[in-house]
Amino acid sequence: MAGNTKAFQDFYPDHLAHCYGCGRLNRHGLRLRSFWSGEHSVARFTPRPEHIAVPGYVYGGLIASLIDCHGTGTAAAAAYRRKNIPMASEPALRFVTAALHVDYLRPTPLGPELELRGTVEEIGERKVVVGITLAVDDETCARGRVVAVMLPEGLMD
Amino acid sequence: MAGNTKAFQDFYPDHLAHCYGCGRLNRHGLRLRSFWSGEHSVARFTPRPEHIAVPGYVYGGLIASLIDCHGTGTAAAAAYRRKNIPMASEPALRFVTAALHVDYLRPTPLGPELELRGTVEEIGERKVVVGITLAVDDETCARGRVVAVMLPEGLMD
Repeated sequence: MAGNTKAFQDFYPDHLAHCYGCGRLNRHGLRLRSFWSGEHSVARFTPRPEHIAVPGYVYGGLIASLIDCHGTGTAAAAAYRRKNIPMASEPALRFVTAALHVDYLRPTPLGPELELRGTVEEIGERKVVVGITLAVDDETCARGRVVAVMLPEGLMD
Repeated sequence: MAGNTKAFQDFYPDHLAHCYGCGRLNRHGLRLRSFWSGEHSVARFTPRPEHIAVPGYVYGGLIASLIDCHGTGTAAAAAYRRKNIPMASEPALRFVTAALHVDYLRPTPLGPELELRGTVEEIGERKVVVGITLAVDDETCARGRVVAVMLPEGLMD
């Protein structure tokens, strides 16, 4: 899952790799990286000090952003897996978010690494639903769901 | 609503004014500012170029973040209004997000100012539900709902 392994987002074509949340080419962004870990997808992210809500805790918008991008990344990876084709295949399968839901179960401490774990709950030709937990030291702090739809052709160019 | 009028967030006590999304003391953050406009709450925000999703469109995590902070800000303002006390009253009424839902109705163009408009849908002693639309040039691009709960005492210190 680490080291030289390529993340889902590393397969996004350059012109679709600028997303603030997960684009490897966005210098200002979060550059979230997601990987398979068995049947689940996993991403790890350590918030910056400015990602604060109230002192000591992570800002909810960051949590929503990470869940969002881990969800669309997982959706893309799952779509390739469903077709049984490599992620480098053309044309790229890229997903955007139609709906995002986050339940904030407890305050998320600011400082430690966050672990996001995704589970594909539904998968069709153009729509994938991904359930995601966000945990710190194995304690779940937030739970989310992303309804991802394949990026319309017009936005791919 | 503009000029010298104080935003909801301007009334947050200093030690609770560091939120990345809306804290006036967060130098790196978005510093969202929300105001009453009749029965609705309104906030305006112009995304930065790096707040990109795919070229030409706003990243969904930013939209979720703005909805989140406009929701908790509106919840606080509504709680003061319900008690018929000024927003500068002590102790501060400050809300955090228990649940956030966003439906992305259409891609949000990157460049123009975004307008968030909140409506208090439910209000109780410790829980406020705020419905929010996000529009560009009067076209609604996303619709959200924030379930906000009063900040537990332990997190206020």
